[in-house]
Amino acid sequence: MKLQDLVSKEIFKQNGYQAPELSGAIKLDANENPFGLRKNLQKELLAEFGKISLNRYPAAGAPELRERFASYYGVHKDMIMLGNGSDELIQLLCLTFKGKIKGVMVPVPTFSMYKIISINTGNKMAEVPLNKNFDLDVAAMMDRIKSNFPAVIYLSYPNSPTGNCFSKSKIEAIIKKTPGIVVVDEAYASFSGATLLPLLKKYDNLVILKTLSKLGLAAMRLGFLIGNKELLAEIDKVRLPYNVNSLSQAAAGFFLDHQAEFSKQVAEIVERREELYRGLKDIAGVRPWPSRANFIFFSCAFDSDRIYTQLAARGIVVKNLQGHPLTGNCIRVTVGTRQENAAFLTALKDIIP
Amino acid sequence: MKLQDLVSKEIFKQNGYQAPELSGAIKLDANENPFGLRKNLQKELLAEFGKISLNRYPAAGAPELRERFASYYGVHKDMIMLGNGSDELIQLLCLTFKGKIKGVMVPVPTFSMYKIISINTGNKMAEVPLNKNFDLDVAAMMDRIKSNFPAVIYLSYPNSPTGNCFSKSKIEAIIKKTPGIVVVDEAYASFSGATLLPLLKKYDNLVILKTLSKLGLAAMRLGFLIGNKELLAEIDKVRLPYNVNSLSQAAAGFFLDHQAEFSKQVAEIVERREELYRGLKDIAGVRPWPSRANFIFFSCAFDSDRIYTQLAARGIVVKNLQGHPLTGNCIRVTVGTRQENAAFLTALKDIIP
Repeated sequence: MKLQDLVSKEIFKQNGYQAPELSGAIKLDANENPFGLRKNLQKELLAEFGKISLNRYPAAGAPELRERFASYYGVHKDMIMLGNGSDELIQLLCLTFKGKIKGVMVPVPTFSMYKIISINTGNKMAEVPLNKNFDLDVAAMMDRIKSNFPAVIYLSYPNSPTGNCFSKSKIEAIIKKTPGIVVVDEAYASFSGATLLPLLKKYDNLVILKTLSKLGLAAMRLGFLIGNKELLAEIDKVRLPYNVNSLSQAAAGFFLDHQAEFSKQVAEIVERREELYRGLKDIAGVRPWPSRANFIFFSCAFDSDRIYTQLAARGIVVKNLQGHPLTGNCIRVTVGTRQENAAFLTALKDIIP
Repeated sequence: MKLQDLVSKEIFKQNGYQAPELSGAIKLDANENPFGLRKNLQKELLAEFGKISLNRYPAAGAPELRERFASYYGVHKDMIMLGNGSDELIQLLCLTFKGKIKGVMVPVPTFSMYKIISINTGNKMAEVPLNKNFDLDVAAMMDRIKSNFPAVIYLSYPNSPTGNCFSKSKIEAIIKKTPGIVVVDEAYASFSGATLLPLLKKYDNLVILKTLSKLGLAAMRLGFLIGNKELLAEIDKVRLPYNVNSLSQAAAGFFLDHQAEFSKQVAEIVERREELYRGLKDIAGVRPWPSRANFIFFSCAFDSDRIYTQLAARGIVVKNLQGHPLTGNCIRVTVGTRQENAAFLTALKDIIP
């Protein structure tokens, strides 16, 4: 067996995604909601799990849950598709849209999985740097758009890791110009209060991607797409029939039942974010960027590898963004609880010379 | 937006997988384990779920669970990979092995997802009919094997929907001859008592696929691959980092903790299978094939569409295999509980003229 003759060339030559190996007492690296479920709610959810026949396959395509999400967003149920996290939906998009019009475009820096998944599904990639305010460089993107490229553009709104929302008018300019579809990833939209959902009525090549992972249910892996029926019908042909397991379906239903509770947590995270931002601003040599997400992006006048390692040694894990030219000596820190944020700020001040 | 310019041609022209819409009181269509968990065990599993922080991402790559499966099978942990059901692992195999050596080969009839997933991931397919005993037609397969085709051969062992195990010597002949890898899908191997795991030491191009779906945990979606490290390391680059959610990981651990319980259920299913086989054999015009799985394949001298519909009208759902030339007027029925099997046999006798 000759391994390198067997494996796709693009896959063979890469290292694969490196999941962080550090796990600290204070986990501020993955943009999770720091708040667990209240005891009584957790009990309620476990009771829901207890009703499930584990020996039976999940409902294929989760029709009831799609119906519920559809009515929540005021769209037809054929405009909703559920996935095993956003990652799986990104993979399905990358697999489906490979016709005469091909390839993927992303601004950078952005969520790294767009590129990883695009490459692994055999797509050509164009990466277009954001401007110095981390907004879209529309002219540069227009330059790369051709009549047959790209099939998919991913725009994270707000963007990870930078935390800002791109200008809506720039996004619309791109939607109008591209021959393919634009996927607006609203993983963090609950924290910005801004959504492009109303634009779905205006553009048939817009798809909105959402997830419960940042809202308190990361363990369950539940992402969903909202977009026009014709597009979703094609993606649905590629979706594995039982992609969302029974417990994840139940947890998503539970999420819809307890919107108020989850929204309260979002409001608290936004409050903590502003405190954390002010705290970072007060540290000399640290430049935090205003954030509309549940994390803060900051550059520092020091070696971020050292900051990262020294924080980790104190049990605080953040995301080190060293490696990309635009984010050298930059760090992304998730908004934690008041205590976690305070511990992080204290440690950071202590480490910084 | 021109949909047909955007969508992969192979995907655009197909109808997609049709999940069965009928749901009956007696579900004998999906090869599930008919037995639920005993109350005390269910309570124990729910307690495990209760320990999980739902706001945190699952352990990426599930290292602890891989370690446990590895020690269960007596292999190195790098020889184990977990997936969101076998389906996801088939998808990963189809995405990874697309080098100079390309394409997928399957015998037919077999599990339909091999073909669906292969097409959706852009692979060329060769389907080679089984011989009249539903064993591999090695000569016909050899004829299709070239120096650069196929990258992957899927062999279901025992085979669904026919229920038999292919000859081991024929499988070995194929493994030796193919330039790519052979995936032996042992989804039903617990019911046959036969496994090709020992062959892993002999052939570096063999990969074994397993699942908990037929053993009582279909709701959780937990499949796993066992195979050589070098192959798995390549597939692992394509695996989405959080593909198996926290609760599925916990359920798989619970499965390993309660092997004896699940094995007892397997033994009972095998007993019920033999009863069901004898029951079918006694019906004039029905020809059941001996089965080594948890289902029975039978041909009948009547229109299987009518049998299917009339069974469904009585709340009994089976798998109608009409549509493939080799399985015209054939039905696959899952082994149920004693009561379910009896109800099925009674209904079938009643329907048959």
